[in-house]
Amino acid sequence: MSTSHPDPRPIAAEFDRDTAITPRGEGVYDTELAAGWHVGGGLNGGYQLAVVGRALGAELGALGKPDPWSISASYLSAATPGPAQVRVRLLKDGGATAVANAELVQDGVVRLTALATHGDLARLDGEVATTAEPLRLPPLDQCVSNEHAPPQIREIAPLMDRFDMRFPADQAGCFVGAPTGRGELSAWFRLREEREPDVLSLLLAVDALPPVTFDLGRLGWAPTVQLTAHVRAVPAPGWLRLVHRTRNIAGGLFEEDAEVWDSTDRLVAQGRQLAMFPRG
Amino acid sequence: MSTSHPDPRPIAAEFDRDTAITPRGEGVYDTELAAGWHVGGGLNGGYQLAVVGRALGAELGALGKPDPWSISASYLSAATPGPAQVRVRLLKDGGATAVANAELVQDGVVRLTALATHGDLARLDGEVATTAEPLRLPPLDQCVSNEHAPPQIREIAPLMDRFDMRFPADQAGCFVGAPTGRGELSAWFRLREEREPDVLSLLLAVDALPPVTFDLGRLGWAPTVQLTAHVRAVPAPGWLRLVHRTRNIAGGLFEEDAEVWDSTDRLVAQGRQLAMFPRG
Repeated sequence: MSTSHPDPRPIAAEFDRDTAITPRGEGVYDTELAAGWHVGGGLNGGYQLAVVGRALGAELGALGKPDPWSISASYLSAATPGPAQVRVRLLKDGGATAVANAELVQDGVVRLTALATHGDLARLDGEVATTAEPLRLPPLDQCVSNEHAPPQIREIAPLMDRFDMRFPADQAGCFVGAPTGRGELSAWFRLREEREPDVLSLLLAVDALPPVTFDLGRLGWAPTVQLTAHVRAVPAPGWLRLVHRTRNIAGGLFEEDAEVWDSTDRLVAQGRQLAMFPRG
Repeated sequence: MSTSHPDPRPIAAEFDRDTAITPRGEGVYDTELAAGWHVGGGLNGGYQLAVVGRALGAELGALGKPDPWSISASYLSAATPGPAQVRVRLLKDGGATAVANAELVQDGVVRLTALATHGDLARLDGEVATTAEPLRLPPLDQCVSNEHAPPQIREIAPLMDRFDMRFPADQAGCFVGAPTGRGELSAWFRLREEREPDVLSLLLAVDALPPVTFDLGRLGWAPTVQLTAHVRAVPAPGWLRLVHRTRNIAGGLFEEDAEVWDSTDRLVAQGRQLAMFPRG
């Protein structure tokens, strides 16, 4: 039994450890991309966006604009575990918003480039007139945990082990060859270690579910061409509910819309991506 | 009666004249922004995007990737009529796509900065599995022309005179103090002079309708924070049908989703923007 004093610093959760950045000045931040966020052909796009978002939050937070109201990312090459840099370039600071470009770079090769508009969500007025219908899911204990995903899925998607996800039973069928065919996937979602959601984790949440094409019987990887996220509010503690839908599959590409609802039924983030339809 | 030979060059339509560019080399293009596209506090965002899109199409078309599969723009300052430059910087060229940054600049001041992923729509496979419901509008002759918009609307929006728009009668009520309150605006749409739609004009079409907030009784300007457009197919000749919807008004911001349907019922473009909710 140890008699030493407990470390007074809070122990960082996995998500915070794996998105940690070290400032090098002039908008440059060092980071270490972690292997656990791998899926398909590279590290998850939402994870990369969260790393970039942390650097943007540090750089623009110093201007009083810590939060990504909107961020658009183009994925240029597959990110790999290991050292990386985020380079933030301020394009405008004026009024309630600041706009910046940010690049995630490994060995001189750009992994993603993003255009972000930041502001301060805490300073927005409180009026909410959302007409989108809150996502309804069966109770947690009636849903299927991602722990029960087949081994071959978990093998190509170590990413899934970063989350506690609970799928409605009919939608979990997509993992075992029984997709609904509706082009919709939804789940309860939280980070491991019960790490509570915040603005940064919403950038991950908009790209955390398997591709909605799983629900169309295609279990292959669906590389993101472009992803845009709007973060509209600081999420309340507790489980998030996520839904991905596609309405426009054509020409080997599909659009995927994401909604993130918090425990107070607030639509806290929306995502839209254009992705390649899996061939397999 | 003139006996001179007719000019063998086709007479460019207004849209083409007003988006014309002159290459200066190294990705730089000169242009002249036209006053007719003014609305609210500056030139229309979709018009600016079309000008930038023409330069991107020239620069990336030379690489066999003429079409903007996806383009995201941040608006940094209000564009004004007069000379401007588009500066295109290639970020990646590989496989079926190329990614570039483009800036619209006037007197050294950046008006908009955009991140675009280009490809060749003609080379995509023909399979279409769109599940979005085609937009249904009353027949053209039962709709209300934008020519009948009140003078005070046309005065703050010279932009409207660039189009032939026909609004369903109930939605036209938003111009005269009788909005439906649904947060939806739709219309038949074509460019003046019966100029047929093409990929470039779709970049305009996703931001051509009045803000959807008109349908909520707010007739003020709704500045765009960020706009993303996906162009999914080359549109067929004839009228387009446009719809704008909002589902998430909160904290003084709103998301606006646009759909553009062509005369063959193909969903040819989708837009999503984050905009400031009008105060007035």
